[in-house]
Amino acid sequence: MYAVEVRDHIMVAHSLRGEVFGPAQRLHGATYVVDVAFFREALGADNIVVDIGRALDALKATLHAINYVNLDDHPALAGQLTTTEFLCRYVFDRMADAIREGKLGAHAVGIDRMRVTLNESHVARAWYEAAVAH
Amino acid sequence: MYAVEVRDHIMVAHSLRGEVFGPAQRLHGATYVVDVAFFREALGADNIVVDIGRALDALKATLHAINYVNLDDHPALAGQLTTTEFLCRYVFDRMADAIREGKLGAHAVGIDRMRVTLNESHVARAWYEAAVAH
Amino acid sequence: MYAVEVRDHIMVAHSLRGEVFGPAQRLHGATYVVDVAFFREALGADNIVVDIGRALDALKATLHAINYVNLDDHPALAGQLTTTEFLCRYVFDRMADAIREGKLGAHAVGIDRMRVTLNESHVARAWYEAAVAH
Amino acid sequence: MYAVEVRDHIMVAHSLRGEVFGPAQRLHGATYVVDVAFFREALGADNIVVDIGRALDALKATLHAINYVNLDDHPALAGQLTTTEFLCRYVFDRMADAIREGKLGAHAVGIDRMRVTLNESHVARAWYEAAVAH
Amino acid sequence: MYAVEVRDHIMVAHSLRGEVFGPAQRLHGATYVVDVAFFREALGADNIVVDIGRALDALKATLHAINYVNLDDHPALAGQLTTTEFLCRYVFDRMADAIREGKLGAHAVGIDRMRVTLNESHVARAWYEAAVAH
Amino acid sequence: MYAVEVRDHIMVAHSLRGEVFGPAQRLHGATYVVDVAFFREALGADNIVVDIGRALDALKATLHAINYVNLDDHPALAGQLTTTEFLCRYVFDRMADAIREGKLGAHAVGIDRMRVTLNESHVARAWYEAAVAH
Repeated sequence: MYAVEVRDHIMVAHSLRGEVFGPAQRLHGATYVVDVAFFREALGADNIVVDIGRALDALKATLHAINYVNLDDHPALAGQLTTTEFLCRYVFDRMADAIREGKLGAHAVGIDRMRVTLNESHVARAWYEAAVAH
Repeated sequence: MYAVEVRDHIMVAHSLRGEVFGPAQRLHGATYVVDVAFFREALGADNIVVDIGRALDALKATLHAINYVNLDDHPALAGQLTTTEFLCRYVFDRMADAIREGKLGAHAVGIDRMRVTLNESHVARAWYEAAVAH
Repeated sequence: MYAVEVRDHIMVAHSLRGEVFGPAQRLHGATYVVDVAFFREALGADNIVVDIGRALDALKATLHAINYVNLDDHPALAGQLTTTEFLCRYVFDRMADAIREGKLGAHAVGIDRMRVTLNESHVARAWYEAAVAH
Repeated sequence: MYAVEVRDHIMVAHSLRGEVFGPAQRLHGATYVVDVAFFREALGADNIVVDIGRALDALKATLHAINYVNLDDHPALAGQLTTTEFLCRYVFDRMADAIREGKLGAHAVGIDRMRVTLNESHVARAWYEAAVAH
Repeated sequence: MYAVEVRDHIMVAHSLRGEVFGPAQRLHGATYVVDVAFFREALGADNIVVDIGRALDALKATLHAINYVNLDDHPALAGQLTTTEFLCRYVFDRMADAIREGKLGAHAVGIDRMRVTLNESHVARAWYEAAVAH
Repeated sequence: MYAVEVRDHIMVAHSLRGEVFGPAQRLHGATYVVDVAFFREALGADNIVVDIGRALDALKATLHAINYVNLDDHPALAGQLTTTEFLCRYVFDRMADAIREGKLGAHAVGIDRMRVTLNESHVARAWYEAAVAH
């Protein structure tokens, strides 16, 4: 199994409803340093997993939609509990859409799986990994 | 598959019997920066893998028992060869106990797997990953 | 010159008024991984710069006041432009107060300078360094 | 599953033929910080996955052959497109050879899988993971 | 003293003439993760050291001129011994030019000093720090 | 001011006498990831601060004397309180000796200052910085 992973980041505000979140129920914020890993069984043309330039562009475009915002007020996230885990899945689904829409180029048709990691501090992070449907 | 990973650390002394360990046969020590990852197929209530506050508390309690000690003299480790690999498993088993004892709360019943990583320097680390029996 | 540096973190929301801030004028957030370095010319009793346990406790107490909050609504920061640079100074002043109030113990009387660094992402950070008045 | 991972690095020049590589078609270079992880289901004698000293030596020997060189002129890589992904596989195959040749010692017969990661910058890395044939 | 530091990177080939460089006399390459720190005694308008967006843009433009190239063939570096130390100074001088040309905006007139760090591997880095002439 | 910094590590046991050390009064241990920075005002011959290969060798030799040992039993450290701060100074003094003995080569005569940092965990480190007497 081959993989390539790229990194970008977002800075968001949000609040988390539910007793389990303690002080995070208040409006606060986070820097999420976001890693997206693309997996495939065999290398494609050009000996690559994915066009890394397009992967970085697609990640930037995906993150742009939720960067420098208060997620509590974001139309696409209305009523959602925007935990780090949830946001991993949100980025995963948008990146999978980008692959299907051809935004990562022809190489990306061979991508089997993807993993999205959100690093939220020096002591905590979360990720979501799954197969990519084509 | 979703995952959440949290970090803490311990500072221990020990010695490792066996020619394979070279100079590490002498009494020496290590800082282990410990990462514990919790995995589950689907998110539970509150869109989380685990209550991260309780996870950090359980990890601190687990590590407390072996922090600032000489492992060679530790009753629970008598006669054991306390390699980094062995200690990964030791922390894994204690954390699995903590889950079964309810110390990580109700969310933790959904945890499928766990991975315990001990980072011992900027050039070496070890981990143990396995299913969690409930 | 000797130094000891300790680390903790906060997760805050805020907005930054002023054209120079571009999208950061909107309500957003940040994880700040906070490093505080204590400097002194010569080591004191016990061969230490500062009691590291007390230093970590004082940092946690200082950060507690601004952790998991929207800085725009924080009474102590009313009307302030809470840039990363400003927040470095804010933490510096509170930590200097803690030293003068004896919260870092007797060793801390020898501290000459302090530096507070706020790491806001994998590509940006800020710090403030100055002498500590006793 | 247990794992041990060790780190070393190389500094190489190369160029990448193909439009997909954009400016990387020109002769340029990279520092690759190389991590090799060894996996096995159960610990062997001495409670270890592998003799970490021998693993580091074998990695250094493997990397020596391609360190401080222009990969475009390297006999073993003639006509190859030396992407990061390709180089992960190259290091993997050489390390698997080293295991089979006994260079990692008797413990290494129990190694099930291996993963080779090449970190090429603070925002990109690649890896190759597969079973090790004995 | 306040400071803000931003990060970007380049991937270059070069060779270093002179016995002291050992195998680095051969054509090889490096990823340099580049940090530029801007220092000033007091914060300017908007409570900032520098417009961080412009600083990142100026750094990208500076690095663009030497990114994905063989420094041995670069017109601006003809006959130079392009050690990491030398390249720190090269980036410093270009960034100081950018400040004087107004590319970092009006805030940048208050910048007293600058430090340019090139991280070349997980075990080595170099930097150059000096006053900025306006 | 130019600087070059190199990294290595040690794994030691020790205990710290004195109430201020709390649980660290017990025999425990630490991995110290050691960074040594060499400073000079102007570059010497070959556009370098120091011969980095010799610097790494001298650091390895210095650390060898205290690696994989119990510092409480080390003849050179008898009766000393081996805090992280103290050990920074110990490494500094040995490295300054190495410079004066010519072990870092002819380039090293130009070194003005040195800084030795011991990283002891992901949340704490110490350093000692001073002029180097020739």
